[in-house]
Amino acid sequence: MSYSPVEIIIKKRNGEQLSESELKFMFQGYIENQIPDYQMSALLMAIYHKGMKKSEISNLTSIYINSGRIITFPEDIATVDKHSTGGVGDKISIILGPIMAACGAYVPMISGRGLGHTGGTLDKLDSIPGLRTDFSEKEFRKLVLNNGYAIVSQTESLVPIDKHIYALRDVTGTIESLPLITASIMSKKIAEGARNLVIDLKIGSGAFIRNLEAARKLGKLLTNTGNSFGQNVKIIYTNMNSPLGEYVGNSLEILESIHFLQGKKIPDLYQITRRLAITMLQIAGISSSETVAVEHFDNVLNSGAALERFKLMIQAQEGDPAVCDNPQLLPRARYEIPIEATDSGWIEAIDSQNIGYALIGLGAGRRKINDQLDYSAGAYLPHKIGDHLERGARLGSIFCNNLHLVDEAAGKIADSFHLTKQPTKHQELILEY
Amino acid sequence: MSYSPVEIIIKKRNGEQLSESELKFMFQGYIENQIPDYQMSALLMAIYHKGMKKSEISNLTSIYINSGRIITFPEDIATVDKHSTGGVGDKISIILGPIMAACGAYVPMISGRGLGHTGGTLDKLDSIPGLRTDFSEKEFRKLVLNNGYAIVSQTESLVPIDKHIYALRDVTGTIESLPLITASIMSKKIAEGARNLVIDLKIGSGAFIRNLEAARKLGKLLTNTGNSFGQNVKIIYTNMNSPLGEYVGNSLEILESIHFLQGKKIPDLYQITRRLAITMLQIAGISSSETVAVEHFDNVLNSGAALERFKLMIQAQEGDPAVCDNPQLLPRARYEIPIEATDSGWIEAIDSQNIGYALIGLGAGRRKINDQLDYSAGAYLPHKIGDHLERGARLGSIFCNNLHLVDEAAGKIADSFHLTKQPTKHQELILEY
Repeated sequence: MSYSPVEIIIKKRNGEQLSESELKFMFQGYIENQIPDYQMSALLMAIYHKGMKKSEISNLTSIYINSGRIITFPEDIATVDKHSTGGVGDKISIILGPIMAACGAYVPMISGRGLGHTGGTLDKLDSIPGLRTDFSEKEFRKLVLNNGYAIVSQTESLVPIDKHIYALRDVTGTIESLPLITASIMSKKIAEGARNLVIDLKIGSGAFIRNLEAARKLGKLLTNTGNSFGQNVKIIYTNMNSPLGEYVGNSLEILESIHFLQGKKIPDLYQITRRLAITMLQIAGISSSETVAVEHFDNVLNSGAALERFKLMIQAQEGDPAVCDNPQLLPRARYEIPIEATDSGWIEAIDSQNIGYALIGLGAGRRKINDQLDYSAGAYLPHKIGDHLERGARLGSIFCNNLHLVDEAAGKIADSFHLTKQPTKHQELILEY
Repeated sequence: MSYSPVEIIIKKRNGEQLSESELKFMFQGYIENQIPDYQMSALLMAIYHKGMKKSEISNLTSIYINSGRIITFPEDIATVDKHSTGGVGDKISIILGPIMAACGAYVPMISGRGLGHTGGTLDKLDSIPGLRTDFSEKEFRKLVLNNGYAIVSQTESLVPIDKHIYALRDVTGTIESLPLITASIMSKKIAEGARNLVIDLKIGSGAFIRNLEAARKLGKLLTNTGNSFGQNVKIIYTNMNSPLGEYVGNSLEILESIHFLQGKKIPDLYQITRRLAITMLQIAGISSSETVAVEHFDNVLNSGAALERFKLMIQAQEGDPAVCDNPQLLPRARYEIPIEATDSGWIEAIDSQNIGYALIGLGAGRRKINDQLDYSAGAYLPHKIGDHLERGARLGSIFCNNLHLVDEAAGKIADSFHLTKQPTKHQELILEY
């Protein structure tokens, strides 16, 4: 079949549905250098404006998946993964992996590096001395089967279309297209071999989705697409108006994850992780009911089994598991500088995105894809919406190695906390599931 | 000023207005190779979907104009031009130029070659032995001042942005954007120096605009934009449901134009040309009223003054003016093959676009930009909507040099005439002015 690229672009531009072979002609043709960048970007912008039908999204996801290798696991083991749409301070993957593995699940986690205001799980793991995340599909599969879980980076041969199209979307203003987001997320989550998937769909000032209505739309697309490939998908809608946990920054978040696995109950982190784990255990068929799942979760945390799995993963991925007992081995910032509240009042809003940008300024995140990170940079920010602060009280602190960067970051962070004289309520963390 | 191209694309994608300097950063940057094709095509598709405000279109037109040279004429001469949005069999520019010049106007016509189903004025002129259309701006200006008019091709230095953006629009499905059409048309018509402009906005099966409502929208954009540069603009909305005149094809249309200038009154061609000329004479300030303009028009046709101007133009542009007296000097097809009506009835519709494609098949038009033309190929098609045909009667004829091409073209042309058993009315040619 030979098509005219312009006619396909015009068809989508006019709001018509594209056939599987038209989509293949364009997207497969794109990574084979048959379709030039400028035609693909025009098509992506047309998709942004006109959307895609359910079957188009499934077909596109299938084209994405079939552009590379596919990982499969034996049918008789319980494979389950979690995907998060990204938030500030989100270290849940790092905590959930060992918990699920300790419960008997197999969790094939393929994760990413940070770009934009949210950090990347791989960047956080990179702060563990020696740890590698660049394994082949074959090695990855073996790691998962041996240890119950592994967290690695996307290889060149897994969903290669996504890497190319994502890079083009990033520079052409077409990231925020729900059908394209769906194909991008689901292709990777299906190709990595997990037959069950829980999605932490984050909503709020720190997420790219700002309201529940838009989130539900995306949630439906993700569920439908997963189902069309025989994957169980469950969406948990969570609040991302305050950063997650108390620490933001790469090695600081590893430290907080270790504390969590050691039994520290950081309220928001604990509540969301618990909800995700319980759902994962149920859809993977490991726990027969909510009550059983709760028991499972509590057991592996209280017994230290989850922390043990974390150590095993670090060792298997060539890192130094001693960091779990001796946090001094993680990169540490030379300075911890307190940030004071500039006014008194209740926190009514936190601009998490702005906090993300402040951290980029400290070197904890990237502006450009090749930026070097300062793994020890970050912030301690224990306060949430609804907390009361006195002027001059400690809002948090900044961790850094370069004092010249402190003032700007501290100012940005202080500005990100919006105070009011009216008492404000704490917010629900789990919005819908 | 330095902008982020992605942020500008996203702004337009979200339906916001772009500032003059943002537009300049993108469009001027594009021809300076600062903005890559894939970002420009994403922006063009966003403009297609979200449109542009009046001031944005004026600013874009200004950026187009200032990307190259601008031609100016003395203030005290009456400069006027006509633009047609393109139709099948449209040879009106070739006829109007000498008529207007004979009336004392100065008509700086910069025209184009055909691509798609409609022929190009320059292709028609190219069929006159020796005639050139590739003059510099300086030579063009001199030709206009000496002879009252000239018809030349767009030079590299006149509105260079348009050439580049048009080529990109052509392959990215963004031709049909009214703001982009407006900037493309008006930039050239303002840069060529005509202070008065009449636009023949064609509507119907042979035009790219299919209804009066869409045409009025475009008409308003064109008028507003011209006015913002101090140009008088008048729109004449004409019917393009039947091909114009009786002949379609390059040298055949030159022959028909000569017959017109010799006094032959081909009804549709005569009516539309007359309407355009009368309006041009009035807005250029040459004729003080409709009645005076009509007299002017009739005089220069009846006296042979218009034909004389045509000969002068041909000579000035290095062609052989003897073609006017001896049509045998024009390229002539070896064969004229009659086409018969396959049924009896009244013509209720003519698919002019399909006729255009049939002519491309004969070599009279281009599929690709570098296709060679057969200047003598074409068709004689005297029937209009509302005419009655008997089965087996002559529908018209095909002119060609290759008998192998006849069957397909004849079939396509016959199929383009839709007959009905119900008497059908002849259609109004001038829809609104």
